[in-house]
Amino acid sequence: MKALYYDKVAMYLEDYNKPVPGPKESLIKILISAVCNTDKEILKGYKPDFFGVLGHEFVGVVLESNNRDFIGKRVVGEINAGCGECIYCKTGRKTHCINRKVIGIADKDGCFAEYMTINTELLHPVPDDIPSEVAVFTEPLAAALEILEQVHIKPSQNVAVIGDGRLAYMITQVISLTGADLTVIGRHKEKLVNFNNFAKTAIETEETFEVVIDASGSPTGIVTAGRLVRKKGTIVLKSTYAGKTNIDMSYFVVNEITIKGSRCGPFEPALQLLKRGLITLPPIELYELKDYEKAFESKAFKAGFEFK
Amino acid sequence: MKALYYDKVAMYLEDYNKPVPGPKESLIKILISAVCNTDKEILKGYKPDFFGVLGHEFVGVVLESNNRDFIGKRVVGEINAGCGECIYCKTGRKTHCINRKVIGIADKDGCFAEYMTINTELLHPVPDDIPSEVAVFTEPLAAALEILEQVHIKPSQNVAVIGDGRLAYMITQVISLTGADLTVIGRHKEKLVNFNNFAKTAIETEETFEVVIDASGSPTGIVTAGRLVRKKGTIVLKSTYAGKTNIDMSYFVVNEITIKGSRCGPFEPALQLLKRGLITLPPIELYELKDYEKAFESKAFKAGFEFK
Repeated sequence: MKALYYDKVAMYLEDYNKPVPGPKESLIKILISAVCNTDKEILKGYKPDFFGVLGHEFVGVVLESNNRDFIGKRVVGEINAGCGECIYCKTGRKTHCINRKVIGIADKDGCFAEYMTINTELLHPVPDDIPSEVAVFTEPLAAALEILEQVHIKPSQNVAVIGDGRLAYMITQVISLTGADLTVIGRHKEKLVNFNNFAKTAIETEETFEVVIDASGSPTGIVTAGRLVRKKGTIVLKSTYAGKTNIDMSYFVVNEITIKGSRCGPFEPALQLLKRGLITLPPIELYELKDYEKAFESKAFKAGFEFK
Repeated sequence: MKALYYDKVAMYLEDYNKPVPGPKESLIKILISAVCNTDKEILKGYKPDFFGVLGHEFVGVVLESNNRDFIGKRVVGEINAGCGECIYCKTGRKTHCINRKVIGIADKDGCFAEYMTINTELLHPVPDDIPSEVAVFTEPLAAALEILEQVHIKPSQNVAVIGDGRLAYMITQVISLTGADLTVIGRHKEKLVNFNNFAKTAIETEETFEVVIDASGSPTGIVTAGRLVRKKGTIVLKSTYAGKTNIDMSYFVVNEITIKGSRCGPFEPALQLLKRGLITLPPIELYELKDYEKAFESKAFKAGFEFK
């Protein structure tokens, strides 16, 4: 089969062995997979230990499985496979397993290929009324929902999202459903117009907010968030990047601010929201795998691959 | 009256006008006041805008008051006086009032003097069975209790306190009452022995903890805390200091760690714990005000002033 293989230096289109599922795994024929910013960060060296097939956002069909109910079903999949044995697996924190394998990110081949194997427990059937072009957003939508798993955002609060990219957009979709007074603060007027139906937008603001979500992708996002958040308020950090930031932590002590790191989230509520049509998604731009360079360079809201 | 006056450069023993209470204030005759590390930080330039009488930990007797019930009573006092008008005062966050006056710290004379005035609403009567030498610990004990206001520490969790000084000691007293598995991590063997009755102690550890409380007083405390805390765990920052720290915030995002700044806390529960004798306090070393240099240089657990 064809696969996009990363060898720790660069990414190539390769002829790759079709994978064989283990006893607790399923074999998936990929229908659509999507490029995430993390894929681009890996190409820049974000995960120096990883080599293998890239990609972790996908919709596919189950061809083989230890769970017969899944065979022939259209599915999406969580990306973190826990060992089941460590302290995190045993205390409900499987996504933080010390020995975890992460599809296309750590120790496990990903979905930029015709076929992929995955731990069957990670699969979620996609309701028939969600097209694959929409279902492929389940993973990033779940990551946005993780904020609501971690922080109680009240309808009467005001909330700011820092950033005007894809991550900020998915977060805005989710937070706007709470009814909270939401402001998106970005640097690009031409991108901010995409948010106008769901939130107020601003390049700068004098306002302060009870909850500030940093989706800027920038190491200085925490500093901007500190300026925007109210005393006793909460900052949620969603951006990952390489590099350190010089921070006056006393500021957060004196103002009793809570900072929460936030990563992967729950799939079932994400599928529920997609099924009900509550999330407005711009179209995804789909390419054949051989045109992977175009997909990675695309300026569209989301680019990905369609397998025929 | 005699008072310890700070003029933005140095501290002097001065003859100072006896203060006159405003319409909502009480006049307090100070019985005992105690030196806090914040006082020493102010002498180093921590609060460049402050000048006036230093000191914010005290026990006194009410001589005059708009509340007649208080007259003649022994009291302790909260330190933050809110304006009552700003967004923080109006949303239950008076200690974060934008225009707040803080006794001996911001825009209000403190308690290193024979008399002091204070907003009557900030006063708490001291139960008769708490000696003044004990009641003077109400303010720092309340600050330690603020951790339990902010974080639900479960009896089944393991908790680490970083630091072996006074702040760490007060925190250890409070956290040990939860029954949690508590470890104090400090640098000084001779100080750690003070904690042996209340917690495990260590210079270094390979263990990880659900909750890590930084009371090290060091800008690098956050880095140590990041190493000790479990994924999805919580770090509470209690130390204030001047200076920035170079931090990899992505680490806290990927591991979904919560960081909480924590400052002043509730007085009534602190008085309850003191009344019940649940807090073990080493003796305070008391000086006359004229010997203020000795009090500031004291290596005792706590030093302060007694007014006869």
